[in-house]
Amino acid sequence: MTTLTTETIDPQRFKAATVLEFVEQALLKSGVNKSVAKLTAKGLWQATIRGVDSHGIRLLPHYLNSVKGGRINSNPKFRFEKTTASTGRLDADHGFGHAAGITAMHHAMGLAQTSGTGQVAVFNSNHCGSMAYFALEACTRDMIGNAYTHATPSMQSTGATSKFFGTNPICMAAPMASEGPFCYDGATTQVSINKIRMHGDSDKDIPLGWGADESGNETTIPSEVAQLLPIGGYKGFGLAMMVDIFSSMLTGAPSGDQVSKMFKDPLSEKRHLGQFYSATRIDAFEEPERFKTRLQDTAERIRSQARLEPEVAVQIPGDPEKAHQADREMNGIPINDTVLEQFETIAQELKIQSLAV
Amino acid sequence: MTTLTTETIDPQRFKAATVLEFVEQALLKSGVNKSVAKLTAKGLWQATIRGVDSHGIRLLPHYLNSVKGGRINSNPKFRFEKTTASTGRLDADHGFGHAAGITAMHHAMGLAQTSGTGQVAVFNSNHCGSMAYFALEACTRDMIGNAYTHATPSMQSTGATSKFFGTNPICMAAPMASEGPFCYDGATTQVSINKIRMHGDSDKDIPLGWGADESGNETTIPSEVAQLLPIGGYKGFGLAMMVDIFSSMLTGAPSGDQVSKMFKDPLSEKRHLGQFYSATRIDAFEEPERFKTRLQDTAERIRSQARLEPEVAVQIPGDPEKAHQADREMNGIPINDTVLEQFETIAQELKIQSLAV
Repeated sequence: MTTLTTETIDPQRFKAATVLEFVEQALLKSGVNKSVAKLTAKGLWQATIRGVDSHGIRLLPHYLNSVKGGRINSNPKFRFEKTTASTGRLDADHGFGHAAGITAMHHAMGLAQTSGTGQVAVFNSNHCGSMAYFALEACTRDMIGNAYTHATPSMQSTGATSKFFGTNPICMAAPMASEGPFCYDGATTQVSINKIRMHGDSDKDIPLGWGADESGNETTIPSEVAQLLPIGGYKGFGLAMMVDIFSSMLTGAPSGDQVSKMFKDPLSEKRHLGQFYSATRIDAFEEPERFKTRLQDTAERIRSQARLEPEVAVQIPGDPEKAHQADREMNGIPINDTVLEQFETIAQELKIQSLAV
Repeated sequence: MTTLTTETIDPQRFKAATVLEFVEQALLKSGVNKSVAKLTAKGLWQATIRGVDSHGIRLLPHYLNSVKGGRINSNPKFRFEKTTASTGRLDADHGFGHAAGITAMHHAMGLAQTSGTGQVAVFNSNHCGSMAYFALEACTRDMIGNAYTHATPSMQSTGATSKFFGTNPICMAAPMASEGPFCYDGATTQVSINKIRMHGDSDKDIPLGWGADESGNETTIPSEVAQLLPIGGYKGFGLAMMVDIFSSMLTGAPSGDQVSKMFKDPLSEKRHLGQFYSATRIDAFEEPERFKTRLQDTAERIRSQARLEPEVAVQIPGDPEKAHQADREMNGIPINDTVLEQFETIAQELKIQSLAV
């Protein structure tokens, strides 16, 4: 069976540190201020090193065009307002969602430090990449992290012919005793549109339950897919609405079908996105070492359950990402020819060190 | 098409207030203390009036037997310990989970009142019924409510032959401008074992994606189902583990496959269950009237999307429950013959007013 990752086209691999440096330099030379460039590069790079290629460095050209177009403010002033002992709001000033998100999570962690929990609503934000970046940050201080964002409308509403919410992911991370954190980071749609397109590129049908056509009827033909289906039918739709309440209603940002399109709307238009972050101190409830040991033990019990297919390991959320990270830290980050060409163009335009050299 | 609710067997209907009184009297006469009986009866009754029959008054005989057997402490002392400005722990002293849950949510709301958000971990608890009971309570004070609980192992682990987590529901409620709150309350399994049994009773096959047999293979034959499948495959499994982290790890309660069996384990054995509740003040982020108006508007936009099937309305989470509630408040609560017989026996044993009179 063909695996649908970038590896199948035998891409070149590049040192992890070199890739991080390239992304950061590209942002800096595009006029993005230093701290935002650093936090944003780290976010893109971290998604890629964890194997979440869809949300990683491949988006760099799009982001740079968004800076050029004026959608993304290259020199934002993040304004944080503490509203109660455990809550606050962050105006992202139309800067990168990655940098705004980490800044918001740091505020949430600060609130949690003094008050047990911290919750921060971000507004005037942009696409923020992989939510794991923010939730994992909380784990560095023995906290549980949660992250929510809305997204471009793509999910068919249950019982309707058309889409309304986006892939609206739920993300949660918690530290473990003897390995990196547990991390669940999943869209409330069954799959991404990317995964469907990759099936199309390979002339393969998709299973029912992934996508529907323009009229709202489920289809197995990738090219007919006009909208994505939620996990568990009405359940995933309900979860997407829950995420919308956190990231749209609590932040004051556009809701559901009013969220702008990441790729189709003009790159001069601000997106006014919202995100919601929370941090919970474990020691407000349980001795952290006991928590981490018990979570580790639970993970081991799951991994040692009898396998349905002898050659496929039983995994917990985050296991595939941990494997990718170990591989890519050691063997380098694979970058396919399309992305590599785009990076070459960027290097020439911005007069920065090319990756290929 | 046959609908799979209690209505199909044309049960008798009883006044909502009479049913509530019956359940409360049965608890009181079984030795349950007054405040616990009141809160527990309200929880069971509320699930039923909202049409969530699986978690409603039909469980009364089981609960009374659990009191008799010693599993449920009829006179618990709930001990609350505030641990930080926004967090606390509640020892449920092996009392009813319903009463412990509402008590915990009230503490969470109190913490939120002073600190913006409140989170309370409950331990030494029992089955607590429908999670909506607790999340909806937060909405009475313009807060968002969240509720998590673990449950008897029933969900097949992704990639494994056997089950590990329970139906581990996610529940969230938020107030709306001109109707009762938005309320999502859904198991992380595709369906309940009850729904599968009802298909079996009607000699109907079930779709793939609902259940698996003893060996872990998906089946369409209800009688072969030994475990339930998660929503969205590995995604629902990940969400169930997230819920387990809140309700097991943070509370110190048993985790995953260590959670005892609701019906099969002896009724003399304590269950030591854990639940996790949180309340978030809306005005810590957004003007509550604006929040409620925008959520109302979003709901209306969804409901007015073109229908996939002309005769089936597009709904948001909580809509079916609101329809049930309106019907049952006006026309009475339907109770099927099996449950009615059990209630008659209870009435005779405890010398309380029979429902049937």
